[in-house]
Amino acid sequence: MNVLLTLRILGALLLFLAAALLTPIPFSLYFADGAAGAFLAAALVSLAAGLTLYKSCQSKRELSVREGFAIVTFGWGFFALFGALPYLFSGAIASPVDAIFETMSGFTTTGSTILTEIEGLPESILFWRALTHWLGGMGIIVLSLAILPMLGVGGMQLFKAEVPGPTADRLKPRIQDTAKLLWGVYVLLTFAEVGLLMLGGMNFYEALCHAFATLATGGFSTRNASVGAYDSAYIDGVVTIFMFLAGVNFALHYQALRGRLHEFWRNEEFRFYLFVTAGAMGLIILLNQGTVYDSFFQNLRYSSFQTVSILTTTGFGTADYETWPVLAQYLLVFLMFVGGCAGSTGGGMKVARMLLLFKHAQVQLYRLIHPRAVRLVKLGGVPVDREVMQSILGFFAFFMGIFVVASFLMAASGLDLTSAGAAVIATLSNIGPGLGSVGPVDNFAHVSAFGKIVLTLCMLMGRLELFTVLVLFFPSFWRK
Amino acid sequence: MNVLLTLRILGALLLFLAAALLTPIPFSLYFADGAAGAFLAAALVSLAAGLTLYKSCQSKRELSVREGFAIVTFGWGFFALFGALPYLFSGAIASPVDAIFETMSGFTTTGSTILTEIEGLPESILFWRALTHWLGGMGIIVLSLAILPMLGVGGMQLFKAEVPGPTADRLKPRIQDTAKLLWGVYVLLTFAEVGLLMLGGMNFYEALCHAFATLATGGFSTRNASVGAYDSAYIDGVVTIFMFLAGVNFALHYQALRGRLHEFWRNEEFRFYLFVTAGAMGLIILLNQGTVYDSFFQNLRYSSFQTVSILTTTGFGTADYETWPVLAQYLLVFLMFVGGCAGSTGGGMKVARMLLLFKHAQVQLYRLIHPRAVRLVKLGGVPVDREVMQSILGFFAFFMGIFVVASFLMAASGLDLTSAGAAVIATLSNIGPGLGSVGPVDNFAHVSAFGKIVLTLCMLMGRLELFTVLVLFFPSFWRK
Repeated sequence: MNVLLTLRILGALLLFLAAALLTPIPFSLYFADGAAGAFLAAALVSLAAGLTLYKSCQSKRELSVREGFAIVTFGWGFFALFGALPYLFSGAIASPVDAIFETMSGFTTTGSTILTEIEGLPESILFWRALTHWLGGMGIIVLSLAILPMLGVGGMQLFKAEVPGPTADRLKPRIQDTAKLLWGVYVLLTFAEVGLLMLGGMNFYEALCHAFATLATGGFSTRNASVGAYDSAYIDGVVTIFMFLAGVNFALHYQALRGRLHEFWRNEEFRFYLFVTAGAMGLIILLNQGTVYDSFFQNLRYSSFQTVSILTTTGFGTADYETWPVLAQYLLVFLMFVGGCAGSTGGGMKVARMLLLFKHAQVQLYRLIHPRAVRLVKLGGVPVDREVMQSILGFFAFFMGIFVVASFLMAASGLDLTSAGAAVIATLSNIGPGLGSVGPVDNFAHVSAFGKIVLTLCMLMGRLELFTVLVLFFPSFWRK
Repeated sequence: MNVLLTLRILGALLLFLAAALLTPIPFSLYFADGAAGAFLAAALVSLAAGLTLYKSCQSKRELSVREGFAIVTFGWGFFALFGALPYLFSGAIASPVDAIFETMSGFTTTGSTILTEIEGLPESILFWRALTHWLGGMGIIVLSLAILPMLGVGGMQLFKAEVPGPTADRLKPRIQDTAKLLWGVYVLLTFAEVGLLMLGGMNFYEALCHAFATLATGGFSTRNASVGAYDSAYIDGVVTIFMFLAGVNFALHYQALRGRLHEFWRNEEFRFYLFVTAGAMGLIILLNQGTVYDSFFQNLRYSSFQTVSILTTTGFGTADYETWPVLAQYLLVFLMFVGGCAGSTGGGMKVARMLLLFKHAQVQLYRLIHPRAVRLVKLGGVPVDREVMQSILGFFAFFMGIFVVASFLMAASGLDLTSAGAAVIATLSNIGPGLGSVGPVDNFAHVSAFGKIVLTLCMLMGRLELFTVLVLFFPSFWRK
């Protein structure tokens, strides 16, 4: 581990954060919400810390894989720490643990909140809250499509085979190009949603905040009642469609914008994603028809919104799904584990991993019947490397292991069993709301400080595909 | 698939069952409980069916792997069907679905019951109930240590490396020898427990029934209040120790009886099993001290009994663990997934699989840090074959998949979410009691017929290591 080089790059990231901390100031001045000073102060602190690290840590060595892990993990950690300053300086959130929870929830695009009264807060603070989502989403797209494959982390290597274009084999020298292209798509989709939401009656500020939270599959809203506050079928529809798009691999959107629309259909993960979405939506509509909603149109509107919101791990709400039939809730819990496509801003275990697990199990059965036959797990017609399958097994084991340990700790912190499990899956899959006392009409304010720290770590681990964070706990990681 | 040969062997198995159906008759006559006729009739039906199949289905072909799968799965199925006859003929259980559920629960050593009033039933019926456990346990030992490795089913191959002795490489010609040796150990341990229980005041009949249910990690008792009815610390202690022993690989017991006691300690799965047992027991004792039990001795007695009963998937009860602290319940739920050692009569995912998953995840992390280093997953110092790891991944995926689908079906059948999940894990892991409405002081009587059929299939799949049953659903299994 080259600590100096790592700290130097973390310093550079803080300089970027300092610039981002200035962007809410125009909103603060426009709305005269009195929080401009808090952002200026936070930006200055980040600038000072960033400059100190950047200047004092010089290193002539090249970046290696180990520094990559440390930079990604501590980068997200530093952002959560320094990004929490405006909440504290403005008095919007009093406790540092709460402020860090909220900021980590933002940058990891989770959307779990400790705020009970959102509408009373300064507009610039709510803009910052949405912006943390959007910046986190940007980070994730580049991380999953450009940086993690370089580090050899779990399952993402398969995109070499699956998605043509910016993630080609000679990726390393082209991180910057890849980033620019994908960010272009991300920005374009964001502004498309802003425009469509404004057509539905939102003002620019609200539309921007909601578009940020949608494209990042985050879920922070500027309203206490989330998207449901607007009570507009049009807005619900627009948000549903953009949540669905945000759960798709952004490399596919890039291809589509280049006119290669057929790439969507050629992509096996996308087809499976579409199948899971349509299947879950159909079942939930069926279960809710006549029990929760009498009008089919109302049913379609609310059921499809909530299904896509949970599956893509966004977490926006227009209905209290805890009042739905038990079976519909059960389906939602299952979707919480699935998550979005790899290469999207969605969290969870990812559709690709689920699909590969499913195929692998099938192949195992086939081999038992035909011991001498050779049949490989394929994705998009290309055999999946054994190493990838091995790493999915590792991912699955860690995901379940962390789920078990963290739920236990949450139960120890005082939550009931359902809420403890739901709080962990809501944060580990970067969804936002869970069930029980952390359900869609509740929030995380009542969780103990210890519990909030556990969940903050769950958000970080879930967002960074577990391995990126876990390697840091290996003693040999730190040895020369 | 050679259907004729399969049916012929199933016929032979029914002849064996017919003989077993005669054994409760002496008890019936001794207690004059009036059920002797029911057993005689059931034996005659089995005899007739067995002879018909055995005589009419001739085949000169050799047994292949495919027939092996079909014989094992349908063998257990036939036993559950024909073994249910005494319940129906004697009037002890009125509904065929209930009777088959109870018999499958017996032969799969699960111990889930649909009976609400046990003590009012004929003694010979309760003896038969315990005997189904014991015979099922016999079947499992041979299945897991001799037959499944031949069929190439999941995870068991590793015993070639791990356990010396009767499971050596030239296993195929020696199934009969292996079976005899292991059954010798099984019978010996059973009678040791019978003797010790009689010293504690049980009569021979009660001691035999409870020893049958203990060694098979079954859980059927002759009392409504299970082992708790005897209210004896001595009996609780004896049963705890024998449940623990029943959860150990029987090949190790065989080695121990040959004087090679050190094989226990040399076996890595056993060490991990000991570690999990001691760890869970310690934590649960800690959680219950002062909250449920004031006396440390009482705490030790009840907490250790229930921990071992759940971990080994026996399911005997001396305490209502649903009144324990939430955290203690949480630990028990986790243990439900683990189960006993491979090669024991215990169910669940098996300690060896858990251990290998854990090791695999560690190796995955190590490889990320040291991409060029070669480090393999080892068990007992011997590298585990990649195929074994692949099959564990498949097992894990299927286990979770079946858990999700079956819990969904149980919720659809009318159970609440906790009870639905608990009912599935209680049957899929072959434990017996679950939580909620199927908890330790409840039973499965209230579950709908549809739900009982789902759970009956869960018991069968769980007991036969999933793959053995699932291959039958593959169309190509049935093709020539």
